[in-house]
Amino acid sequence: MNTKSYVEKNKDRFINELVELLKIPSISADPAYKDDVIKTSEVIKNSLLEAGCDKVEICETPGYPIVYGEKIIDPNLPTVLVYGHYDVQPPDPINLWDSPPFEPVIKKTDLHPEGAIFARGACDDKGQMYMHVKAMEYMTANNDLPCNVKFMIEGEEEVGSESLGWFLERNREKLANDVILISDTGMIAKDVPSITTGLRGLSYVEVEVTGPNRDLHSGLYGGAVANPINILCDMISQLQDEDNRITIPGFYDKVEELSAEERAEMAKAPFSQEAYNKALDIAQEHGEKGYTTNERNSIRPTLDVNGIWGGYTGEGAKTVIASKAYAKISMRLVPDQDWHEITDLFKKHFESIAPAGVKVKVNPHHGGTAYVTPIDSLGYKAASAAYEDTFGKTPIPQRSGGSIPIVALFEKELNSKSILMGFGLDSDAIHSPNEHFGVWNYLKGIETIPHFYKHFTEMSK
Amino acid sequence: MNTKSYVEKNKDRFINELVELLKIPSISADPAYKDDVIKTSEVIKNSLLEAGCDKVEICETPGYPIVYGEKIIDPNLPTVLVYGHYDVQPPDPINLWDSPPFEPVIKKTDLHPEGAIFARGACDDKGQMYMHVKAMEYMTANNDLPCNVKFMIEGEEEVGSESLGWFLERNREKLANDVILISDTGMIAKDVPSITTGLRGLSYVEVEVTGPNRDLHSGLYGGAVANPINILCDMISQLQDEDNRITIPGFYDKVEELSAEERAEMAKAPFSQEAYNKALDIAQEHGEKGYTTNERNSIRPTLDVNGIWGGYTGEGAKTVIASKAYAKISMRLVPDQDWHEITDLFKKHFESIAPAGVKVKVNPHHGGTAYVTPIDSLGYKAASAAYEDTFGKTPIPQRSGGSIPIVALFEKELNSKSILMGFGLDSDAIHSPNEHFGVWNYLKGIETIPHFYKHFTEMSK
Repeated sequence: MNTKSYVEKNKDRFINELVELLKIPSISADPAYKDDVIKTSEVIKNSLLEAGCDKVEICETPGYPIVYGEKIIDPNLPTVLVYGHYDVQPPDPINLWDSPPFEPVIKKTDLHPEGAIFARGACDDKGQMYMHVKAMEYMTANNDLPCNVKFMIEGEEEVGSESLGWFLERNREKLANDVILISDTGMIAKDVPSITTGLRGLSYVEVEVTGPNRDLHSGLYGGAVANPINILCDMISQLQDEDNRITIPGFYDKVEELSAEERAEMAKAPFSQEAYNKALDIAQEHGEKGYTTNERNSIRPTLDVNGIWGGYTGEGAKTVIASKAYAKISMRLVPDQDWHEITDLFKKHFESIAPAGVKVKVNPHHGGTAYVTPIDSLGYKAASAAYEDTFGKTPIPQRSGGSIPIVALFEKELNSKSILMGFGLDSDAIHSPNEHFGVWNYLKGIETIPHFYKHFTEMSK
Repeated sequence: MNTKSYVEKNKDRFINELVELLKIPSISADPAYKDDVIKTSEVIKNSLLEAGCDKVEICETPGYPIVYGEKIIDPNLPTVLVYGHYDVQPPDPINLWDSPPFEPVIKKTDLHPEGAIFARGACDDKGQMYMHVKAMEYMTANNDLPCNVKFMIEGEEEVGSESLGWFLERNREKLANDVILISDTGMIAKDVPSITTGLRGLSYVEVEVTGPNRDLHSGLYGGAVANPINILCDMISQLQDEDNRITIPGFYDKVEELSAEERAEMAKAPFSQEAYNKALDIAQEHGEKGYTTNERNSIRPTLDVNGIWGGYTGEGAKTVIASKAYAKISMRLVPDQDWHEITDLFKKHFESIAPAGVKVKVNPHHGGTAYVTPIDSLGYKAASAAYEDTFGKTPIPQRSGGSIPIVALFEKELNSKSILMGFGLDSDAIHSPNEHFGVWNYLKGIETIPHFYKHFTEMSK
């Protein structure tokens, strides 16, 4: 039976299995959900065994466990390593969800007339990761697995994959492979398949500004002491200039500048600024002067405050000057910025612009290096051919603004390329309330993945 | 028996009664404490009856009730109206309290070797308000009440006395008086008695900045849309210039400029910038260029962010661009700024500096007009004489940075002057964790107040 008919025959079960998986709140950022994260790793283990892996183990790490599975049919055949993650982002702001984030519901939308599964992790990454498990099931059930396969599913991606490097260093042999396959990105549109060839890096820091040693009455002290919230705002404001360029000295020194040709090529991707603004209900886009929206969110580095807090945030009014103010700040990086270096530059600069009236702490959270996949690589060609089989058209190579720091890590530790076959859409609201994943996209992914195995094995001969 | 010996004889009971009062969390800003606020008003009613008032009533308002009490001994004698409030500030950040805010404890401190009562409201204003109740008890118990007295104790001071104007308009006759006595301020030091002659006004607003219509993944959208948190920081930063002057057009137009003589007079108050900075653990003071710390927090207007929030503020990292960011902002005003006008100026200006990529809302909370008491008024002279009786020295007239908006309201609605006899210290940490009130200050207040009644009655002849 070919993949298309197998998916058609089993789609209800495929959907129900994913729905069950999405019910477990595996929020790695919040220790309160520790048991759920652990429980999810066990569910993944069983699903890999049922899908036909010969050996599956839950590998302990300093953090959350990594689920490893494999089926080695012939050492002389190529080996595909599938990476994914079973942890999810926190769901807040929870009040903006139309249905509870961990009670999946299937609803039709304009973009998803066949229905979409609404739940935290539906697309990022439980849904996309599970496509590979079901593709594996197809290949083993139909005796259609052309090469060796290994799975490495982690539980700390949303908190910076802190234990992954540790695990890779200790398991280079076990993880040896010819190509790494990842579905944790999106495609341009359901009728415009695309393969992500570039990812941005990341530097994520938390800053703390301390003014007076205690909260003060804003009447008795207002105007006479540095207010850490006002100061934090001043300092954040200084991080970008009126052209929305980042002012940290040295920040742009190593930024890869694309040629006019490359930018012209990028500009060919279908895009409507009007539709973009309308979808976000914004009157005007905003970003670095001299670049388009698609350039700003892919080939250019950025600085965004992801969270800020300080003082009285409850109902009503409190006339207080807070002792401390905090912000979580992330910078998206591009080739060839080094995230450790950028984090240092940020720290030095942020501390240097602090006025004498306050103390400043910069705590690096995590980071990752940007990555680009060559489109002439075997893996890319095999993926392209797979999309052609199931979509009937050649996929567009696309730079994504997101970060999968571990892709660069894989190249370093395992010395192999990653192929990013994403089936989600930008509108899937990953990391947002009402995250969802189209049923059509989910099933199309399961259908397409085995074609990659076939082409990659043949092209490797 | 004179006040000194009566206080000495009853001090333990006076302290215990206040401790009981402080156990009720009458937080007017938080609806969750509604019952406690109501309960407190009943406790105050009973305490006024026990103190010798002939008539006491709990007067309903659109908000929390106002407790009214009176003892009219002779319509031809002058009438003193005592104002105070029984509500308190929220206690957060609660984790910074050394003991629970509503479980009062008495501890010795360097400034309070006789001990201080630690609890929310100990000084602001339950402790200082209750001094007047106990002074009343002394005068009636010892047949020493020289004039008529009225009490008006409200429960919404910490949320802007929203119902007070409504109450005053409807009770002008009932509240008719010759002078209003208030203890809701501080004095310079235990050995430096002072009377507050000036108060700053207030305009308190809440702002909301909306960017995209939903939270976004900072990787996929970062750099391409206006981040409401970054924008809010930019906008707040623009509200003050490098000299820490407020940039709102027209903001300073009506500010009362003091003469060199007046400023020289102010400068005579004992003050050590070094001690001030040390007490707050700050390396350097901060404020409007060209003014001293004592000027910055009394005769100059200010702008402080009292609270800010937006995005992910939980543990760990979330790479999100929030849809909305918020801040609570208060401006302290001086004579002759009109708070309604300043609120409008703020709103217009804040909306005008918003970039096209965001929507901005400004919601005025409340406000009040600044106030100055003439030192040649009968009330001021009587208060001065009272301090001389019990402190043995003439009190210093002092401008305070705080706001008691209702003082201006009293002048407008009741056409009478307020005398601010404060017995707290700046170090009492009102509105902060570990608020406290010195036992010595509390008892000294009870001892001093009856002297005011005596002098005011005599001077009125």
